[in-house]
Amino acid sequence: MNTVHRDAGPAEAAARYPSGAAARRAIRSGEWRGHTSGLAPGYVQGNLVILPADLAGDFLRFCQRNPKPCPLLAVSEPGDPALPELGAGIDIRRDLPQYRVWRNGELVAEPHDVADLWRDDLVSFVIGCSFSFEQGLLEAGIPLRHVAEGRNVAMYRTSIATRPAGPFAGPMVVSMRPMTAANAIRAVQVTSRFPTVHGAPVHLGDPAQIGIADLSRPDFGDAVAVAADEIPVFWACGVTPQAVVMHAKPEFCITHAPGAMLVTDLLNHHLASN
Amino acid sequence: MNTVHRDAGPAEAAARYPSGAAARRAIRSGEWRGHTSGLAPGYVQGNLVILPADLAGDFLRFCQRNPKPCPLLAVSEPGDPALPELGAGIDIRRDLPQYRVWRNGELVAEPHDVADLWRDDLVSFVIGCSFSFEQGLLEAGIPLRHVAEGRNVAMYRTSIATRPAGPFAGPMVVSMRPMTAANAIRAVQVTSRFPTVHGAPVHLGDPAQIGIADLSRPDFGDAVAVAADEIPVFWACGVTPQAVVMHAKPEFCITHAPGAMLVTDLLNHHLASN
Repeated sequence: MNTVHRDAGPAEAAARYPSGAAARRAIRSGEWRGHTSGLAPGYVQGNLVILPADLAGDFLRFCQRNPKPCPLLAVSEPGDPALPELGAGIDIRRDLPQYRVWRNGELVAEPHDVADLWRDDLVSFVIGCSFSFEQGLLEAGIPLRHVAEGRNVAMYRTSIATRPAGPFAGPMVVSMRPMTAANAIRAVQVTSRFPTVHGAPVHLGDPAQIGIADLSRPDFGDAVAVAADEIPVFWACGVTPQAVVMHAKPEFCITHAPGAMLVTDLLNHHLASN
Repeated sequence: MNTVHRDAGPAEAAARYPSGAAARRAIRSGEWRGHTSGLAPGYVQGNLVILPADLAGDFLRFCQRNPKPCPLLAVSEPGDPALPELGAGIDIRRDLPQYRVWRNGELVAEPHDVADLWRDDLVSFVIGCSFSFEQGLLEAGIPLRHVAEGRNVAMYRTSIATRPAGPFAGPMVVSMRPMTAANAIRAVQVTSRFPTVHGAPVHLGDPAQIGIADLSRPDFGDAVAVAADEIPVFWACGVTPQAVVMHAKPEFCITHAPGAMLVTDLLNHHLASN
């Protein structure tokens, strides 16, 4: 059902849409309907959750209580499609390449804009994503296998419970990146500087300690090999809030389609704590 | 041959000698001849290596090339027993509770002062020690088993080579602290802030990867248990420069006796990078 497509390779897309504003213009005009990975290199991209105002307070409290999987970059005013903290002129109804529309927990549509579904009570939540810290890891010379192999990162449901708020509850989902011990130590340092995009790892080493039975069978994304001299390193993942929202089955909800994120005007480097 | 002794318990000593200056006064007067662990809580303590000037350039270059095991806090002028960067009025010949005197790599004496052995060509090197980052770990709520059990930390020779300079060469020695994965991640964060006292770990997980065959048989210090839900975390250790110096067999050398360090006027918190 995923109808997004690429009409250019990553390098070409990066050159054509060098900034968040350029990427959003191309997306809003319909010129770009592909994944956002590789667009506007260096600019922060965010996961999107849009909920009716009567659930927004609970979800906001959920994010506050679970900042590692749910690092909030911005929350809109009810009914207002703008997000001025994240970019000039953002229209959250039209600025993502593809959306998912959910009713009572069921996926009902994957449109390229949601202007016709907009309501005066909708609140948008933009949540930091690991693209930002992955740039930091790559710049620090730490290879990322899923990037090298052109795969989606491997993600797993864990036995780590989130702290519930209202109807929102469920296990933390983590992403896993295999690396040598020396790179794992460096990765803790690098990602600690990015608390608003999941921050430091939540676990490393034995997967069973966080309820993962088999690394070769991720719950989301693609499996990657862990070499004999590597350990798996686990970060809280932005799929957590999506899974929690689906589990709560709100009467109405809009999210980004996988890989089709909001591209902002913030630079990843702006998110560094020091 | 270790003749140091304690004449008071740690809490009593901490109360009696609350500052680096107070501790040094008691040591210089002969009132305190015990270990310095627990004296002047919160103040930086350092390892001492004193070498003739003709070897000092090589050793300084060795430390510069190996900052994780050999983080230099201060280097004296040749022949000058003062170290003004580390404390007002320091006399390095009299301000440690006990010294070790080495000739051609052989331990020949363990005096309480070395004033009668002083020479105009001697250069003092004070090297940061893990006491400082251990305070940071304990303040961060990370338990340290060897501290809880009143043991010396476990130390191991590794297969990690240091970068040689002149006659100074040899394997890196590491200290090991077992902890849960979550505490290991936090420990990387905490110790990264203290680059002048060994900084972040050099390894975690599989000891065989750094040439350690059996964790229960440390080369120095005392073994501690690693629980099933813990991983061993390894830091570069200040025993490295001592082992390297002994291996080089200088015609003359003075070091601190184990546990009998220089207590400085710097606060551990002053060493934090951020």
